Amino acid sequence: MSARILAADLPSQVGKQVTIAGWLHRRRELKSVTFLIVRDRSGLAQVVLSGPAAALADVEMPEETVISVDGTVTANEQAPGGAEIVQPTITMLSDPAAPPPFDLYRPAITAGLPTILDGAPTTLRHPNLRAGFEISAASVHGFRSALEALGFVEVHTPKIVESATESGANVFKLDYFGRPAYLAQSPQFYKQAMVGVFERVFEVGPVFRAEPHDTARHLAQYTSLDAELGFISDHQDVMVVLRDTIAGMVAGVQDRAGPAVALLDVAPPVVPAQIPQIHFQDAQDLIAKHADWDPRGEPDLSPADERWLCEWAELEHGSEFLFVTGYPMAKRPFYTAPDPSRPGFSNGFDLLFRGLELVTGGQRLHRYGDYLAALAARGEGPEHYASYLQVFEHGMPPHGGFAIGLERWTARLTGAANIREVTLFPRDLHRLAP
Amino acid sequence: MSARILAADLPSQVGKQVTIAGWLHRRRELKSVTFLIVRDRSGLAQVVLSGPAAALADVEMPEETVISVDGTVTANEQAPGGAEIVQPTITMLSDPAAPPPFDLYRPAITAGLPTILDGAPTTLRHPNLRAGFEISAASVHGFRSALEALGFVEVHTPKIVESATESGANVFKLDYFGRPAYLAQSPQFYKQAMVGVFERVFEVGPVFRAEPHDTARHLAQYTSLDAELGFISDHQDVMVVLRDTIAGMVAGVQDRAGPAVALLDVAPPVVPAQIPQIHFQDAQDLIAKHADWDPRGEPDLSPADERWLCEWAELEHGSEFLFVTGYPMAKRPFYTAPDPSRPGFSNGFDLLFRGLELVTGGQRLHRYGDYLAALAARGEGPEHYASYLQVFEHGMPPHGGFAIGLERWTARLTGAANIREVTLFPRDLHRLAP
Repeated sequence: MSARILAADLPSQVGKQVTIAGWLHRRRELKSVTFLIVRDRSGLAQVVLSGPAAALADVEMPEETVISVDGTVTANEQAPGGAEIVQPTITMLSDPAAPPPFDLYRPAITAGLPTILDGAPTTLRHPNLRAGFEISAASVHGFRSALEALGFVEVHTPKIVESATESGANVFKLDYFGRPAYLAQSPQFYKQAMVGVFERVFEVGPVFRAEPHDTARHLAQYTSLDAELGFISDHQDVMVVLRDTIAGMVAGVQDRAGPAVALLDVAPPVVPAQIPQIHFQDAQDLIAKHADWDPRGEPDLSPADERWLCEWAELEHGSEFLFVTGYPMAKRPFYTAPDPSRPGFSNGFDLLFRGLELVTGGQRLHRYGDYLAALAARGEGPEHYASYLQVFEHGMPPHGGFAIGLERWTARLTGAANIREVTLFPRDLHRLAP
Repeated sequence: MSARILAADLPSQVGKQVTIAGWLHRRRELKSVTFLIVRDRSGLAQVVLSGPAAALADVEMPEETVISVDGTVTANEQAPGGAEIVQPTITMLSDPAAPPPFDLYRPAITAGLPTILDGAPTTLRHPNLRAGFEISAASVHGFRSALEALGFVEVHTPKIVESATESGANVFKLDYFGRPAYLAQSPQFYKQAMVGVFERVFEVGPVFRAEPHDTARHLAQYTSLDAELGFISDHQDVMVVLRDTIAGMVAGVQDRAGPAVALLDVAPPVVPAQIPQIHFQDAQDLIAKHADWDPRGEPDLSPADERWLCEWAELEHGSEFLFVTGYPMAKRPFYTAPDPSRPGFSNGFDLLFRGLELVTGGQRLHRYGDYLAALAARGEGPEHYASYLQVFEHGMPPHGGFAIGLERWTARLTGAANIREVTLFPRDLHRLAP
């Protein structure tokens, strides 16, 4: 038996004796010939059994059984890639497979979300489901490449913390050697501290929200793509880096997930050299003037507002991305820097993409006294934040950053209706397994 | 004020007017001249104040205050990099800094580990402490590059799980919407399942151990570098991939963390094209024959055994790495594949490096029936593993993998006596902050 080659390599091996291995994707028995379609990480390969070999019909070898196939490669325009294997010798590498939760060989997915999620270790083998995770991995590669090229250093911060990061609500509590502790809702405080060490840092890691909402876009764990940088003038410098990061993610998808993009018919967005931006207040004025509702006075944008603004940005600027800047201080976390020229508004921004908020970011406070004042203004004392606040006494530069939800990004790209379709083994109010 | 340049760029800007920004690393006042050393992410820059500018002496601007400096670059062989800034205008970007827990400008670290860890957000700015994390980030970059070049896909798996992954002991328990759940001790089951989807996967993420041991090498959270691959003949195929991965990590450190390697006087190891290997039983025989103790009969290697074997590998094979293969089944997890030719021994291995186990890996079981038998042999029923075991009913190839502890790797490379020195904000029996 020769060394294994991949299905995608067959066309270059016509006339040769080769070995392939993979899952029996599909088995079709005709009168005098049996076709086996073998699936491996590169794609599909056709194997033809005819004459005496068709005796295989007696062997219990259902779809999803893992096999290796030794045989001769022959050109055949009808076969995937234009080549197939004939005169095969087949070896089973697993026991005969039990039927998967739904037929994985059918091009369309014939099961609902609960079936897909309950059987995820098996159902994600379906090429259309797997493709979302290829796009996700390529996006993360692009995220890191873009930031490393800009001098950012990767960090890995604690996920078990002494107190709730951003608010007392929606945190998971755990028993930490007999004392209470919490799962981190974000690496916010740690990435800020690390600006003092590396100036520019990023982290790709899990964050945890005890979300009591059972919706198509809430998860109890998701993957947060975080970045933070120092020596900025204001949030506009952060937005420039974010724009380059998003462009890197799109490039990553195009360069590294081409087959998945084609399979799912994904249209990767064009990232304008300058993403258009609008101030929160101007955005509300615009909506009040042109839409049939009036959002003015609300401290945040509604989902309908976000959709309307995205349509406007597409029409007005030809952009699928839109920055909204200057969100009211009242709706931003206490560490947000205010806009020095517009009382009540912040140097915080959101990036909207295809009708939805994709990224939240902004400039942070960087002076110790400003933190004490910001906490006092919210009726909180500094005690709970002592180990966070210490760093601001020791000299921190003006800084800011952003966080991108990986699953939300992938869902927007692939058009997934439910974020769970592009989350590996999702966790939510009801789901803790598999 | 011109756009900021980095300290390392000064030598190429002699004669020009520039702006730098960073932390006031050191301030030295002589009779008629004041030297400021500014630290940024690229290194150190010297700023000279003389004549009227020395009036700065009256400004409260202690070390670690963040400043920007506008001035003219002049050649000076005595200055770092051979250039310095004269006739400066200085702007404070932070409030005057409170003194750090110890003097960050001294080349040697003058504080003990508790002081370093309590003040980590500030103390890690010391170049010698920061360097470990540069080496760590470069290692992770090399890990991913090596595996991506081999066709591996990155995954992000759940950290909240329904039941303890590998044993009932040492898990953190949490309240998951009113029911019990646990923090994942490893991504073991998920990475195995994903072999069914992608054949080759890796993950870089946190793992959690409720370690009741208070030692220099135990942590409650660490960063695990995991990989798993299918369609192997046995564990030897996994060891080949591991060897290439380690070589990639060393290359990453050399290519991307040169200054940190030089600063800490780290000697990156040579990774032999073929790392020498020895069977567990042969290793015990060898120790019994040549050392002054007899480990035979023990089901595992002791720390002394590991040290002895590393010295032996260095002398006999000129290698700082040594594979020990065939660990007894009794000491390996239930999912470990047995050695078909040597009853009682496994297809599991460890990789030893500089006197210590660095990596654990091996071939796994891949047939459903084998899992049921393995659990039964240990007196466990399959109920607790139902969502894990399901995938093996649906066709899994022979597969295996490994896990590298990032902090342990970095500690070995840098010679850190305590793993906490190279862990970002460590968590242990006593430490939950900062």
